[in-house]
Amino acid sequence: MASTFGTLFRVTTFGESHGGGVGVVIDGCPPRLALTVADLQSDLDRRRPGQSRLVTQRDESDEAEILSGMFEGFTTGTPLAVLVRNNDHRSGAYDHLKDVYRPSHADFTYDAKYGFRNWAGGGRASARETIGRVAAGAVARRLLAEVAGIEVLGWVDRVHDIDASVDAGAVTLADVEADPTRCPDRTAAAAMTAAIEQARRDGDSLGGAVRCVARRVPAGLGEPVFDKLDADLARALMSLPAAKGVEIGSGFAGTRMTGLSHNDPFEPGNDGPRTTTNHSGGIQGGISNGEDITCRVAFKPTGTIASEQQTVTRDGEATTLAAKGRHDPCVLPRAVPMVEAMMLLTLADHWLRQRAVDVLPVFDERP
Amino acid sequence: MASTFGTLFRVTTFGESHGGGVGVVIDGCPPRLALTVADLQSDLDRRRPGQSRLVTQRDESDEAEILSGMFEGFTTGTPLAVLVRNNDHRSGAYDHLKDVYRPSHADFTYDAKYGFRNWAGGGRASARETIGRVAAGAVARRLLAEVAGIEVLGWVDRVHDIDASVDAGAVTLADVEADPTRCPDRTAAAAMTAAIEQARRDGDSLGGAVRCVARRVPAGLGEPVFDKLDADLARALMSLPAAKGVEIGSGFAGTRMTGLSHNDPFEPGNDGPRTTTNHSGGIQGGISNGEDITCRVAFKPTGTIASEQQTVTRDGEATTLAAKGRHDPCVLPRAVPMVEAMMLLTLADHWLRQRAVDVLPVFDERP
Amino acid sequence: MASTFGTLFRVTTFGESHGGGVGVVIDGCPPRLALTVADLQSDLDRRRPGQSRLVTQRDESDEAEILSGMFEGFTTGTPLAVLVRNNDHRSGAYDHLKDVYRPSHADFTYDAKYGFRNWAGGGRASARETIGRVAAGAVARRLLAEVAGIEVLGWVDRVHDIDASVDAGAVTLADVEADPTRCPDRTAAAAMTAAIEQARRDGDSLGGAVRCVARRVPAGLGEPVFDKLDADLARALMSLPAAKGVEIGSGFAGTRMTGLSHNDPFEPGNDGPRTTTNHSGGIQGGISNGEDITCRVAFKPTGTIASEQQTVTRDGEATTLAAKGRHDPCVLPRAVPMVEAMMLLTLADHWLRQRAVDVLPVFDERP
Amino acid sequence: MASTFGTLFRVTTFGESHGGGVGVVIDGCPPRLALTVADLQSDLDRRRPGQSRLVTQRDESDEAEILSGMFEGFTTGTPLAVLVRNNDHRSGAYDHLKDVYRPSHADFTYDAKYGFRNWAGGGRASARETIGRVAAGAVARRLLAEVAGIEVLGWVDRVHDIDASVDAGAVTLADVEADPTRCPDRTAAAAMTAAIEQARRDGDSLGGAVRCVARRVPAGLGEPVFDKLDADLARALMSLPAAKGVEIGSGFAGTRMTGLSHNDPFEPGNDGPRTTTNHSGGIQGGISNGEDITCRVAFKPTGTIASEQQTVTRDGEATTLAAKGRHDPCVLPRAVPMVEAMMLLTLADHWLRQRAVDVLPVFDERP
Repeated sequence: MASTFGTLFRVTTFGESHGGGVGVVIDGCPPRLALTVADLQSDLDRRRPGQSRLVTQRDESDEAEILSGMFEGFTTGTPLAVLVRNNDHRSGAYDHLKDVYRPSHADFTYDAKYGFRNWAGGGRASARETIGRVAAGAVARRLLAEVAGIEVLGWVDRVHDIDASVDAGAVTLADVEADPTRCPDRTAAAAMTAAIEQARRDGDSLGGAVRCVARRVPAGLGEPVFDKLDADLARALMSLPAAKGVEIGSGFAGTRMTGLSHNDPFEPGNDGPRTTTNHSGGIQGGISNGEDITCRVAFKPTGTIASEQQTVTRDGEATTLAAKGRHDPCVLPRAVPMVEAMMLLTLADHWLRQRAVDVLPVFDERP
Repeated sequence: MASTFGTLFRVTTFGESHGGGVGVVIDGCPPRLALTVADLQSDLDRRRPGQSRLVTQRDESDEAEILSGMFEGFTTGTPLAVLVRNNDHRSGAYDHLKDVYRPSHADFTYDAKYGFRNWAGGGRASARETIGRVAAGAVARRLLAEVAGIEVLGWVDRVHDIDASVDAGAVTLADVEADPTRCPDRTAAAAMTAAIEQARRDGDSLGGAVRCVARRVPAGLGEPVFDKLDADLARALMSLPAAKGVEIGSGFAGTRMTGLSHNDPFEPGNDGPRTTTNHSGGIQGGISNGEDITCRVAFKPTGTIASEQQTVTRDGEATTLAAKGRHDPCVLPRAVPMVEAMMLLTLADHWLRQRAVDVLPVFDERP
Repeated sequence: MASTFGTLFRVTTFGESHGGGVGVVIDGCPPRLALTVADLQSDLDRRRPGQSRLVTQRDESDEAEILSGMFEGFTTGTPLAVLVRNNDHRSGAYDHLKDVYRPSHADFTYDAKYGFRNWAGGGRASARETIGRVAAGAVARRLLAEVAGIEVLGWVDRVHDIDASVDAGAVTLADVEADPTRCPDRTAAAAMTAAIEQARRDGDSLGGAVRCVARRVPAGLGEPVFDKLDADLARALMSLPAAKGVEIGSGFAGTRMTGLSHNDPFEPGNDGPRTTTNHSGGIQGGISNGEDITCRVAFKPTGTIASEQQTVTRDGEATTLAAKGRHDPCVLPRAVPMVEAMMLLTLADHWLRQRAVDVLPVFDERP
Repeated sequence: MASTFGTLFRVTTFGESHGGGVGVVIDGCPPRLALTVADLQSDLDRRRPGQSRLVTQRDESDEAEILSGMFEGFTTGTPLAVLVRNNDHRSGAYDHLKDVYRPSHADFTYDAKYGFRNWAGGGRASARETIGRVAAGAVARRLLAEVAGIEVLGWVDRVHDIDASVDAGAVTLADVEADPTRCPDRTAAAAMTAAIEQARRDGDSLGGAVRCVARRVPAGLGEPVFDKLDADLARALMSLPAAKGVEIGSGFAGTRMTGLSHNDPFEPGNDGPRTTTNHSGGIQGGISNGEDITCRVAFKPTGTIASEQQTVTRDGEATTLAAKGRHDPCVLPRAVPMVEAMMLLTLADHWLRQRAVDVLPVFDERP
């Protein structure tokens, strides 16, 4: 199941940076959902290279085709297959990488695992693979909006040592999209922009963090004990390229609080209990509690840098390497739709799973 | 698959804090592994209450019985079922919780999900559920030691604001077990002990972090793109009770480095390439690279505290609650074997999965 | 997933003929279902040895204990674990089998697969393993009755060359249970009884077929293209010990009809279209159509016979073997609850899965 | 997992008879397997329409494109995606079916399940979906040949009431392909041809059976108790369009034998025990025993016939229907590669799974 995610809303991605194309099969999307290619394209455009001067300038239009699973504008309940063709002009751009392992890339580990190496670009480890995830996430976004009014929104929370200050409860998509950094804190965004441009000039790269919130998630989603909502989110988010850490709610900072200050007190609400704080990040015991679900993902600095680095060849000889070509000095702006996609896929799957739990009538007189 | 973990080394846990017992079914353990109940019991004893004055003083011996899957001292390849009986004297100890939701527990969310609530103790959300995980982890420990010499070792890295300083490459099980805190840094351990005892006196609780390392993991484990080794570890660790964050390698701290300093340079080694640093935490592109695998898990402060807190009843009335009974003021010492277990289960599963990848002969002349 | 069945109503069986016991973990049973041990015991009693003079006279009471997943008479939504202890007096009854492979048993194949052999009784291949299935099937029976009024009923349709004539639409549980053969055709039942008793006297054994019907299954269950309802039923039924064939609806006999006579014409019904014949066996395109679901399972003659047979030892020497002990000369009467159980488990799983398909509102104006 | 098959060699098909195309994603094919499009095309050509006058004369060339998972002629270990474009000239050919349910098709059940109907051709229930299966089966065929020398061969065993007489141990691919019926018994083939042509002239259709054998399968494949090799085969085969029955080895005929004649005696062989007969069909206790694996699948007569039949409209009105267009009067010749594909996929999956079982050294002195 290496390339498959989800129990009921199941996505299977395929494709490498070079070859015929990349894409996804989405199995389990309910029938009768109105859907268009434009729904997919708007998220794909937020992910694609060349969208701003902050990201890689490779020219990839990433136009999606829906091959199956639709009829007259609606999903049919059968698998949706989505294909994005590669612009496959494999010039000699990667020839210098044929016999050398790029540090902190997947070159060596793919070779160790598969005993074989597709050295043309990143192969399956390329960020192009996330096209399938983002396309599937866009379908999940439509489904969750329609069945439950759920909204998922991410933004850049940190670049290197620049932290944003954002009101997670109030920030909007327009706020996020207003700046190429996808950081809605304008002061921080300006500093991030300067830092990213400096890193590019230095032949270096920067990491950072994306924060993401899901609003209007009903209480009750998540399946203890291994498919807890936070556990499945952690897997989903950590599976993104370059991810090194995941937090739910208070995360690591919460370890410095005490039980008295960290516990989220309940108060009566119009539609069941509400909490007065949200250190839990909307999840308690692995199940959503109706508050906003909040998470944060750490992305390491991009591995591909123009500066010269120490490494070894496939034959085990010491050598040095400096990357050529056009790369992202900082993946954070493009990582936002990827993080949203993984959160959307996780929520869609759990929303459907809860349908099979909430089956029998509730008791008039609860035991 | 809510209570099942793993693709080939599959464990299914069952049981609540009250009722007949808790346990696990382990399906997929290879045949011909020498195994005894004592192998399980040694890890269970590190998890159980009452083992030191730092943890809850409930008296639970947690003796395991292997019901199936063994013959004359060896595994048979069929499911191993392990049962630990509950000491089920459900006195009125929990009666006061019947109609009230404990803050930052799973009481409300279980009720929201299942429309029904087992209010006797923690029910399925009780830490007793981890008995099954630890028992299965002990089997995985035996398997990994036998097939690959892999060792997994965890320790307490932080309690509240007290951070330990530990050489992750040199620390031993004896170092960890030498102190009831399971922190091998003696100075930090003393401070942690004092802090935990103060929290208990204050009717409060503390959180912290566990660090865990896996040694001698061969390069090549992990299945891109969704079952990456780090993704599956993140899910495994975040599924533990009270976990709020997971880091692999440099984690969130790595976001403050640049590509030039964060990248792990390769150098020739006796048995393939080695890295001179290990910010990657032994995983690149979701696949192990032969270096130590390192991770860290954040645990929030224990939710159950003796101090009075604001909450609501099942009928939606505001009320207050102060916990009775004997609880852990800090789960960290007992969390260590749980973290190890989840890492062991993840590695055992991926070690077996790689057997089905590495099938065809490698090329004499590699393309 | 060798010992796990189902996607949402997931059962995992464990246990061998000898050792601590056999049982099952049922994960995914919805909460709030009223359930008692007696619900399980009534089906287990139809499966157990010693229930009549036609079956093996081994004395096994097979009393079930529910270890988890219940609270105050209702399911909680967490895993139900069921344990039936073995009466484990492993005398020397099996010593003569230690070094010899019984013909048409699993002795040799288990040894080939696992490189190890549990020679005490049938090990995991023993029919005792089906205790877990029948217990889980009893839970599924309760669930399906409550949510949809579904009824599943099986009976012995053939023993050796004696075929029963039964009105599949009218036969009742009382009709089936009225005779120890579980054949509701009294004339055939008498002939079957005589044949079975003769086979026992001859040191021989007989096979046969069980027919099973599911009534009041709503249209729409089954997930094309691999989890079609008939495909999942076929797997479920073929996984029973001694099963060699499965038919849905017209089965092999239908191959001798033509399209004109085999097609089931539709006619208007009170609650949607009905078919005037049911050669499809209630399933079309892998999805239930609202008619009775009918299937038939072929069971080979019992492998264990008292007559002497040619075989080989583990060391590859030719030898002969005649079974000792008390065995079933014909498994058919005890196979009926097993067949029902597998049909119940399949239907419960698909009923829950359809909950996650039928999510969005139907169109007022259907495209 | 409706459209996904397999645990380690996992295939996910997509596509309908109309729309962008049909295809498959194969996840888990080991790296370093030499593979070409021609390997796929040769099996696809045996499946496609228009290959002989016995089958439908629709003109579909069914040319496959491998989109991903290959590099320089070898598999990379990443998902192989295969696409076959539809010739999508959706004229008004299906307009007359928009509001009416074809008897014994999936029209009504898809509508009942999905609340929506893709009435253009067979939609997902079209036999075009099997293109993905056959393409994946061709990859499995290459893998099994390379790792174990396994060969899978099917043929038409019955059409209507005409049974073939074929030596299952000796028949070759050339024998099967020598006649458009794919029946290697020439006398029977001639009678089948005449019967099929008569059925076409009558506006009627015929069913039949395919027999399939797998040779050189090593002993030890199959995972008790639910993923037995025969159980997984039964599911695989019953998931084919129009399948109504599955037999392994002696099947239903075996129920008329007694234990003494049905049991397969063991005799010493060069490479372990062999059986002198093969009523077990190469599988005992759900595990292969090294003998030829034999199975048989019943296919009902094609549902689409030119004769007028009674049915109902979507609005529940009684009406009649006679099929237009070019249809198969008998699917059997084209079903052969489909049956082979499902057997190949099942064996490839289990061959890989056994790699993760046979891990620890065998005992010098076996217990």
